[in-house]
Amino acid sequence: MTLPTLGLVGLGKIARDQHIPAIAATGLFHLAAVVSPDGAATDGVPTFRSQAEMLAALPGLDAVALCTPPAVRHGLAVEALRAGKHALIEKPPAATLSELHDLEAEAEAARRTLFTAWHSRFNPAVEETRRRLADATIRSVAITWKEDVRRWHPGQDWIFATGGFGVFDPGINALSILTDILPAPVFVRSADLHVPANRDTPIAATLAMGAAPGSRIGPVTADFDFLQQGGQTWSIVVETADGRLDLTHGGTRLMVDGVPALAEPDTEYQRIYRHFHRLIDDGASDIDPRPLSLVADACLVGRWHRTVSFDW
Amino acid sequence: MTLPTLGLVGLGKIARDQHIPAIAATGLFHLAAVVSPDGAATDGVPTFRSQAEMLAALPGLDAVALCTPPAVRHGLAVEALRAGKHALIEKPPAATLSELHDLEAEAEAARRTLFTAWHSRFNPAVEETRRRLADATIRSVAITWKEDVRRWHPGQDWIFATGGFGVFDPGINALSILTDILPAPVFVRSADLHVPANRDTPIAATLAMGAAPGSRIGPVTADFDFLQQGGQTWSIVVETADGRLDLTHGGTRLMVDGVPALAEPDTEYQRIYRHFHRLIDDGASDIDPRPLSLVADACLVGRWHRTVSFDW
Repeated sequence: MTLPTLGLVGLGKIARDQHIPAIAATGLFHLAAVVSPDGAATDGVPTFRSQAEMLAALPGLDAVALCTPPAVRHGLAVEALRAGKHALIEKPPAATLSELHDLEAEAEAARRTLFTAWHSRFNPAVEETRRRLADATIRSVAITWKEDVRRWHPGQDWIFATGGFGVFDPGINALSILTDILPAPVFVRSADLHVPANRDTPIAATLAMGAAPGSRIGPVTADFDFLQQGGQTWSIVVETADGRLDLTHGGTRLMVDGVPALAEPDTEYQRIYRHFHRLIDDGASDIDPRPLSLVADACLVGRWHRTVSFDW
Repeated sequence: MTLPTLGLVGLGKIARDQHIPAIAATGLFHLAAVVSPDGAATDGVPTFRSQAEMLAALPGLDAVALCTPPAVRHGLAVEALRAGKHALIEKPPAATLSELHDLEAEAEAARRTLFTAWHSRFNPAVEETRRRLADATIRSVAITWKEDVRRWHPGQDWIFATGGFGVFDPGINALSILTDILPAPVFVRSADLHVPANRDTPIAATLAMGAAPGSRIGPVTADFDFLQQGGQTWSIVVETADGRLDLTHGGTRLMVDGVPALAEPDTEYQRIYRHFHRLIDDGASDIDPRPLSLVADACLVGRWHRTVSFDW
């Protein structure tokens, strides 16, 4: 059996740390090429300077995985879909909601699979939390997502540029889990966004959210910080009428009333590539705009505060 | 034949200036009640303090028209739809995109008509412009939307509060026309948002937009200003390969290469009520998130600038 061939576009940290190992570990795709504008290469795989060059050189390519910064993903996804390729897009899948809606239309017109890979959802602890919340009365949800941008995104200036999302780059992972585990939608009521004097995207943000009247979901808060020194926190605490769930370590571990219930090694990217393969087999797409909507909504209703300049 | 009964929720300037006269002029609905939290009344129509009171008192009511500030529209629309009423919502239809997506789901579940009334589209000159642009090569589009907030929204503090949209309250009218007349979607590339030191929403904004590669649409710009003294400007200038279109006066007049082509009296709200009546007859909804997406996108990718305080 011949494996579908995949071109990896963008050879940054997430591609090297996660995508390449997961593609190798799952063995469901043949990594046929990588695209790296600065000429960086990976062992034994043909490297191209642009996606257009790759598509021209490898007309039989089946799929692409887009791991570039979000600002250029829409153009690349349109190019790939129109060339008849299936596309997996790293989170966030586009720089704006209008772009994401357009990609949905492009995938439909091209009759190709589009998969907006919200990777944090692909942990067993997230699935278990969703199962436990399906019929729960949820008194409150508190998201705390605090990490050190200097450690996880060293020197990546794009993250603080227009379309780079700033602290929402990690924060959207929490929102992708939130929208996955809750049994009803929540809405941003207010937000405070803290933007360094010399940058264009927030370095910290707090969100107050709530559900529609009549739902069994109390207040939902999110506290995002990109300047967390020492211990890093990626946790969602859910208080229900029946007890407390602590989904911690970015969605990989679950405690129920303080007792560890589930902890699995971080294999989310392997699940992502299995899901992508299945979607292609089924002729389906998986496009979820909700995490991006919540971020845009936070910017729409949020108050901006200028904070001290940020330098690496 | 009995007319469907309508309750008008929110008795502010737009309700008095436009909705009540249009309901009377079209004669397609019987205005059965108004809701006015501050007790303001309109001649000969029962007045309630809240929508809930009206729904309880008039169980046979067929439809509501929501003319409140946007921040409370989602809750009211959910309440009305769940009570089995059709709902027309003034623009913008919700405070956030997540709310609007939810309303779409609520309308479907309730099997009732939901109509997000982007009123500026309901002018014959807009329709004529769309027709002329369907196959055109569009070199550029320049939106200029400059009005005096003190004249048009005197003392309406909600417009500068969280969820009030600021200059996007009129600006979204221009974007509702833009998304209606262009033959392909456009995306916000960058934006500058000017927010008074003592307020939470922009008083001026400029947007740079563009279409997907391969479309025949050049750069699209928008210049929104809420402090325009003297002459007021609500115009969209489209340069095409075949000439120039000037859609002016908020979409009510069209000039082709400088020659007046269409100018009709402002009857957009009459068209809105005719459309609402037809949607109800057809068991259909008309929900378009695109203008709101563009505003949220502008806030998502935009740079904020603090400007001098604004007072009435």
